[in-house]
Amino acid sequence: MTCLAELGERELLKRLEGFAPAGQLRDDGALVPSSPGRHGVISSDVLVEERHFSTVTTPPDSVGWRAVMANLSDLAAMGADHVVGITVGLSCPGTLPWPWLESVYGGMVRALNHHGGHVLGGDCVEAPVVSLAITALGTVDQEHVIHRHGAQVGDWLICTGPHGLSSYGLDLMLNGAQPPSSGLQGQAMAAHRYPQARLDVPPQLRASQPAGTPWRVAGTDSSDGFAQALHLLCREQGLGAHVHNLPLPAAMAGLPHAEQHCLWGGEDFELVLALEPGWARALLGHHRGFCHVGMVSAGDQLLLKDPRTGTMEPFPPGEPFHHF
Amino acid sequence: MTCLAELGERELLKRLEGFAPAGQLRDDGALVPSSPGRHGVISSDVLVEERHFSTVTTPPDSVGWRAVMANLSDLAAMGADHVVGITVGLSCPGTLPWPWLESVYGGMVRALNHHGGHVLGGDCVEAPVVSLAITALGTVDQEHVIHRHGAQVGDWLICTGPHGLSSYGLDLMLNGAQPPSSGLQGQAMAAHRYPQARLDVPPQLRASQPAGTPWRVAGTDSSDGFAQALHLLCREQGLGAHVHNLPLPAAMAGLPHAEQHCLWGGEDFELVLALEPGWARALLGHHRGFCHVGMVSAGDQLLLKDPRTGTMEPFPPGEPFHHF
Repeated sequence: MTCLAELGERELLKRLEGFAPAGQLRDDGALVPSSPGRHGVISSDVLVEERHFSTVTTPPDSVGWRAVMANLSDLAAMGADHVVGITVGLSCPGTLPWPWLESVYGGMVRALNHHGGHVLGGDCVEAPVVSLAITALGTVDQEHVIHRHGAQVGDWLICTGPHGLSSYGLDLMLNGAQPPSSGLQGQAMAAHRYPQARLDVPPQLRASQPAGTPWRVAGTDSSDGFAQALHLLCREQGLGAHVHNLPLPAAMAGLPHAEQHCLWGGEDFELVLALEPGWARALLGHHRGFCHVGMVSAGDQLLLKDPRTGTMEPFPPGEPFHHF
Repeated sequence: MTCLAELGERELLKRLEGFAPAGQLRDDGALVPSSPGRHGVISSDVLVEERHFSTVTTPPDSVGWRAVMANLSDLAAMGADHVVGITVGLSCPGTLPWPWLESVYGGMVRALNHHGGHVLGGDCVEAPVVSLAITALGTVDQEHVIHRHGAQVGDWLICTGPHGLSSYGLDLMLNGAQPPSSGLQGQAMAAHRYPQARLDVPPQLRASQPAGTPWRVAGTDSSDGFAQALHLLCREQGLGAHVHNLPLPAAMAGLPHAEQHCLWGGEDFELVLALEPGWARALLGHHRGFCHVGMVSAGDQLLLKDPRTGTMEPFPPGEPFHHF
């Protein structure tokens, strides 16, 4: 009998999609009924010890913070501008020290306080390994939903921030580095431990929408890396991308593997958006941290401009994080 | 440092409540914003292999069915009459055979089809042990919410069905019995494997509400047993209960431990309600399967009528299922 590891993550997800209505699982979250003019948005993530976090790299406060922010990032990727709260499905051994768990919940609540939501409910059961299954609920204007699909050839590709710091920080800690209080290394470790969901982006999209331009925003969050976000926005929609400008943090430019961290590292929790060029220009004027990285193209190739030769080359090989 | 097992389930839950707004976690689910005149209801449960189900007693189709019904039962206990759907946080080893998982999802979808909801989203991650973290979303009339609190001295206690079959069925299977197709034993094993959430009850409460009687329904589901439901409805609210009539399935009357199964077995997923007597009478007339079990009393004792002597005695000792 075929086991899940033999199927692989992509095939497994494809098969599980068969149990939901067509198209139901194609976005970062799902729309549910809400008040008039609004949709609810719901999203779930499971984090398992030693797979998604480790006591070596992640203090308990950060375990809770990251678990919440990963879910809120999915809400932001759907266009949500309001967080209702989360439910927490906690599994852990009975031997777990209470102070550890207290810090995890402390981190969750701190992350929620940043965005105005709270703990709605949950469950708490004994299990041999620690895991946190979080479901987040938010709301979005019916008119202002972001989907993964909908990009068009000629759209500009916009990143809401640089990519690679979180992955670089994780690498440092896996190699035994202790967080210094400042400098690039400290910044990278903090980026890994305390990422920020970009719930500030949907209001900026609305504020920068040019008069007469209909709402059409394709977007996803970059939880599994910048390259994976482009894959979801472009290739899965039968489109390609020409990337002329990698969203590398300036301070990482000289580092070995910087490009790999940026493309495949993941967990930066920025948004990657495809927008009509006029709107994209307005958005870039609106916020200095946003970055124009390229353009949606016909075909289904992801191409990256070689800065030395100026030619477009296929993306360097790499693999997104496998959750399975 | 104190570990969770030393704290015990009750103290652990009390401490975790400190991370949510006051009163937020006191019901079977939580209310969230919805359309005008309606509330959303959200509820989460985690089921872990070898703790909440076992391949000995629960075929995969039943694992999925039970996981969904346990959550839908929480929605029913809040008064929900509409199911939006569920998110599924699945953790499992890579060695898990696909056909097993396919059956789990099949069972989930069959259970959802009974009540009109669907799979909204989810996550799927690798972990050493199988667990299912389900979050269910439904809706309820703003005017027709059921809370655990609100019972008053003199209210009648109503069960929506008998208690004990599921626990008896589990016992049989743990002792190696194979499900026969009929008879009490077959019925008991089926009750354990394929429980029904009582989403039909909220509409019956509305239909039987006497004119001029304001909406006041205290209730909870009996997922952790009839005695635990009374504990939540009465003792946790500073009240007691006089039970003159145990909701035992008639066919179990002569069985050893029948009373224990009924009081402490759990997983019957019926509702236990406290209602103004006139309303309770109307409800009992409305549905023959409902059962008048007793009355809410002053004090905080749960008393049970001894059928031989006619005197009220304290509940026989027993323990609800410990999730932790």
